[in-house]
Amino acid sequence: MDSQKVSSQDIILTGDRTTGPLHLGHFVGSLKNRVVLQDVCKQFLLLADAQALTDNMGNYVKVRDNVLQVALDYLAAGIDPAKSTIFIQSLVPELSELSSYYLNLVTVARLERNPTIKDEIKLRGFERDIPAGFLTYPAAQAADITAFKATVVPVGADQIPMIEQTNEIVRRFNNSVNAEILVECRALVPENGARLPGIDGKAKMSKSLGNALALSASPDEIRQAVKMMFTDPNHLRVADPGQVEGNVVFTYLDAFDADQAAVEELKAHYRRGGLGDMVIKRRLEDILQALLAPIRERREQYAKDPAQVMAILKAGTQKARETAGQTLSDVKAAMGINYF
Amino acid sequence: MDSQKVSSQDIILTGDRTTGPLHLGHFVGSLKNRVVLQDVCKQFLLLADAQALTDNMGNYVKVRDNVLQVALDYLAAGIDPAKSTIFIQSLVPELSELSSYYLNLVTVARLERNPTIKDEIKLRGFERDIPAGFLTYPAAQAADITAFKATVVPVGADQIPMIEQTNEIVRRFNNSVNAEILVECRALVPENGARLPGIDGKAKMSKSLGNALALSASPDEIRQAVKMMFTDPNHLRVADPGQVEGNVVFTYLDAFDADQAAVEELKAHYRRGGLGDMVIKRRLEDILQALLAPIRERREQYAKDPAQVMAILKAGTQKARETAGQTLSDVKAAMGINYF
Repeated sequence: MDSQKVSSQDIILTGDRTTGPLHLGHFVGSLKNRVVLQDVCKQFLLLADAQALTDNMGNYVKVRDNVLQVALDYLAAGIDPAKSTIFIQSLVPELSELSSYYLNLVTVARLERNPTIKDEIKLRGFERDIPAGFLTYPAAQAADITAFKATVVPVGADQIPMIEQTNEIVRRFNNSVNAEILVECRALVPENGARLPGIDGKAKMSKSLGNALALSASPDEIRQAVKMMFTDPNHLRVADPGQVEGNVVFTYLDAFDADQAAVEELKAHYRRGGLGDMVIKRRLEDILQALLAPIRERREQYAKDPAQVMAILKAGTQKARETAGQTLSDVKAAMGINYF
Repeated sequence: MDSQKVSSQDIILTGDRTTGPLHLGHFVGSLKNRVVLQDVCKQFLLLADAQALTDNMGNYVKVRDNVLQVALDYLAAGIDPAKSTIFIQSLVPELSELSSYYLNLVTVARLERNPTIKDEIKLRGFERDIPAGFLTYPAAQAADITAFKATVVPVGADQIPMIEQTNEIVRRFNNSVNAEILVECRALVPENGARLPGIDGKAKMSKSLGNALALSASPDEIRQAVKMMFTDPNHLRVADPGQVEGNVVFTYLDAFDADQAAVEELKAHYRRGGLGDMVIKRRLEDILQALLAPIRERREQYAKDPAQVMAILKAGTQKARETAGQTLSDVKAAMGINYF
């Protein structure tokens, strides 16, 4: 993230849909950075239950229960509620209000052209039966971002169109009231390979694809995951030359091994033959066990007292409401629809 | 309205977009009935500023200023704030929240098939550049209706698809939570000819068409309007036979003259010839002057003290929030997303 400097003046808005506990992919792609960034600037972390409902109406229990699960993952990974404001989206009604006004500033055609939305529609097989709330969620996302006057939104490269959509709404609103009320934001895209593949080698780690390693994984689950991990299917005998590219074990060693010189040596050895999968898997397993053990232990500590975690979320939500409420109040005042 | 009985158990939700003062068409089509119905059952009257913004972003001053103007029209026409709850839509955030969940219960395709929306899109020349907030306003309207557990919604026949859409959302939500949380409503369609034509004979009276007679019209404006009123363009000499159908003066006499037997005699006389437009117009003018004088006077009284009117709206809005807040709370509890 070096080239995309985040300063102490910045405000970060990011978060997760509450559809399942977080996994190692989240850790590499976002969570790890958040732990660093909370020492740099203000950071709002959204538990996006309302957004999760846009394609989970009826799955209320799942969406609700995972609010606590994701919060536990945050705290376990090192998010400090004294530094980061963790809040529950559905408890900040100001976001719905802002969103309802932003819906008037974006056309249906524009939403349908949004590449992120287009991809997601295809991915979910919605066709024309897409829920209206799903098509319009860029407006809701613009509300999430602008409510906190966020200047930085960490996203994957595929989400950049969403940021552009938000900035369009910002400019359109500011133009319509002839004042700089809302703030434009910029995408913070992880530099190289922050997307961890699934243990099966598929590009994306995902709970629903069954190729994820949960942050809360037990030692046994970690062992099993590494054992099942995709390597080089043509590397049948130890003596054979093996392929490093697309070999998940090496991708993970790149991501997690502190001794990158050793990893380069292992790669060279593997390529010329004579290095078995067992050896590199054992090395990776040790590293993952060491990485996840303290996270799992912190998680278990917090999980013993869910009331304490909920109190953290309550306080964060209260703080988020104050900030979002101020923005909403500015927005309504600029429109002149502040009556009393 | 005889055949569509409204009982004391009913709850009515109705209102007006705050885009201009009300006119005689509103009085005949809705306002007059509301004055009667406020003695029959609970009635919530919505000053729909947020809905007005769906196609008036930027016209903030117009939308805002007409909140007071429409409220003055209500009070002048005999709406009693002790009986009817008059409230400002944008000040009830619970409506935005409900709406955001309802958006997940309706597909884009379904919204696009809504005949009312289709007509309005055509009328406004939106094509594909329709603001998302405009396409999705049936969900917002469902929020307005269900928030107050309204059972009766007075609408024109062209608005019946909107009521069906609301009831679809109600059923879908109740099914999804397996409980009867939201209440279905029925349309209350005025029986015969409750739609008053414009003074130019066009089917719809509308400020923007320039064929309206404002409820607040001065004696001179009333006189001018009647003078300009469309009659029978072929009725050139008094002695000629004249046509009653499509003759706005007679349509208005049907609507406002207490002595309907006398009107029938006038019609017969007009048809056979020998009755001049001047005579029937003078009769209509007297009736309209008598009808509108007390309304105008009450309006002027209230207009002298806008702070008092705003206090009425503030109290109504507070009451509306309590009711809508209870419904929202029921909805969220049913979804299980009530965390604290």
